[in-house]
Amino acid sequence: MMMATSSNSMVVNTSFDALSPLKLPTISKFKIGLCQLSVTLDKNQNLIHARNSIKVAVEQGAKLVVLPEMWNCPYSIDYFAKYAEDFDDDKDASPSFSLLSEAASCHGITIVGGSMPEWNDGQLYNTCCVFGPDGKLKAKHRKIHLFDTDIQGDISFKESDTFSAGDEPTIVETEMGRIGVGICHDIRFPELALLYRAKGAHIICYPGAFSMSTGELFWELVQRARAADNQIFVATCSPSRDSTGFYKIWGHSSLVAPVFEQVLSGEMIATSGCEETVVVAEIDYSAIELQRHNIPLERQRRRDVYEFINKSEAEP
Amino acid sequence: MMMATSSNSMVVNTSFDALSPLKLPTISKFKIGLCQLSVTLDKNQNLIHARNSIKVAVEQGAKLVVLPEMWNCPYSIDYFAKYAEDFDDDKDASPSFSLLSEAASCHGITIVGGSMPEWNDGQLYNTCCVFGPDGKLKAKHRKIHLFDTDIQGDISFKESDTFSAGDEPTIVETEMGRIGVGICHDIRFPELALLYRAKGAHIICYPGAFSMSTGELFWELVQRARAADNQIFVATCSPSRDSTGFYKIWGHSSLVAPVFEQVLSGEMIATSGCEETVVVAEIDYSAIELQRHNIPLERQRRRDVYEFINKSEAEP
Repeated sequence: MMMATSSNSMVVNTSFDALSPLKLPTISKFKIGLCQLSVTLDKNQNLIHARNSIKVAVEQGAKLVVLPEMWNCPYSIDYFAKYAEDFDDDKDASPSFSLLSEAASCHGITIVGGSMPEWNDGQLYNTCCVFGPDGKLKAKHRKIHLFDTDIQGDISFKESDTFSAGDEPTIVETEMGRIGVGICHDIRFPELALLYRAKGAHIICYPGAFSMSTGELFWELVQRARAADNQIFVATCSPSRDSTGFYKIWGHSSLVAPVFEQVLSGEMIATSGCEETVVVAEIDYSAIELQRHNIPLERQRRRDVYEFINKSEAEP
Repeated sequence: MMMATSSNSMVVNTSFDALSPLKLPTISKFKIGLCQLSVTLDKNQNLIHARNSIKVAVEQGAKLVVLPEMWNCPYSIDYFAKYAEDFDDDKDASPSFSLLSEAASCHGITIVGGSMPEWNDGQLYNTCCVFGPDGKLKAKHRKIHLFDTDIQGDISFKESDTFSAGDEPTIVETEMGRIGVGICHDIRFPELALLYRAKGAHIICYPGAFSMSTGELFWELVQRARAADNQIFVATCSPSRDSTGFYKIWGHSSLVAPVFEQVLSGEMIATSGCEETVVVAEIDYSAIELQRHNIPLERQRRRDVYEFINKSEAEP
């Protein structure tokens, strides 16, 4: 497949012009669509679902569309390997990848393609592909922080038994702004969002599939915190609760803005319930400028005193 | 004054044994008291208020007491210099410092003494002093991130016109656990909390005086985020809303716990309204262990990919 690449570093933008003052993209006010899809055991059905849902978002004016984590495969270790595709392979072998590429070019939109199980060199990854309006792959993010948890009476799950972890942050220049990408558990680590902020991201997109308990506890809190702390937009997209899989999913795909004066009651712009739906909401990047004028956090940062952050050792 | 020191580095604990696995202090379950004081123009009155309030907290069982930012001085550039004390001077010249020291030894408690304007070598600082149950100064934190803001129609304020900034994080070993200290705007920077987490803090205490607008926007959000992201306790203590000063104060002194299973509706353990009051609430550090067992964030951190965080340049 012509636009595929097996190397993250080819598409990840790590140039340091990102460190210059905020540059707004030419289009700084547009609609985003979050496709909260119901994921079934039938992969072909999942693909049709996704195609229809993207169309609905586009009909409502979305120029940037985000899909959920594992939108083409039930969230279960029983299915990841079976549903996985090799994105470097020929077109027939990666129908999910092709569907996203074609939807992006057909509608002329940017797609942050949720995540899909990816085979590459004998390894399995939880991978997000970003496509431009020409249908070309712009970036590929492999989930960096795998979700290993052991909560008695709730959920015990070890993603790292099945998946290999990505090793690179992903920030990509698009017509809809500079987009940082994280997948689900990646959102729990403020460091990744700080990194995207330092590199000039306007928005971070986190496809995710939080469970009922972690969803209620953290889903809203962490996305609001990432937006407020970094003075950027944050978009999340989850499968709907009725999805097939190992656990019940929280849902609540959302768009969060950096807050600004006169919006005192909260910066959650749009959110869904738990059912299958498409959230379409307006992004206005000028909110970033205003917020950074009001409270210039970046200028106030004291990187000289943070030197020890990365020197801790992991607990055994 | 015998226990005073002019150098932060003498009392700041930066030893790297902090990086070993979580060690709970001998006393891991105890009560904390947050004295939400009404600050007046009358400094002597403020001192009497503080003394009484600490006593109320102790009578309710508090072993660790936190005071608000600028508890002895109206929050206004007109008063900071006038009310400031030199903590290295003789006892009569620093009555606020002495009061905290005596209260700590008299009640046998640990005091995180909010903040006070401090003169030192011709510089003015916004400083928090921590005292042990023997009345000795254990640590001195000078506000690192000064609050400069310009929100049209709300508040325009430049703390850096008056204060010099501190240059060192402050983490201190006490009988009530390893305490990280931040003052007000310090809480807006996730990096400082991450640093304290990496050094083994059990709790971060943030005396603060958020305004009405920044309070409604950020006060609850950021303290919950710091607690959840770092799986530690967070305590905040503010002056009450009727305090004299340059702006109206939000209040809402709070204790936030790292969340754990079965506490699905939020981890805010105790909070106040805006009036003068004393919040007394129980801390149980075993919640930290449980939460870190459930979701071992520290082991999942990918410090290998965060290397660029500190390489950003401040915006002009």
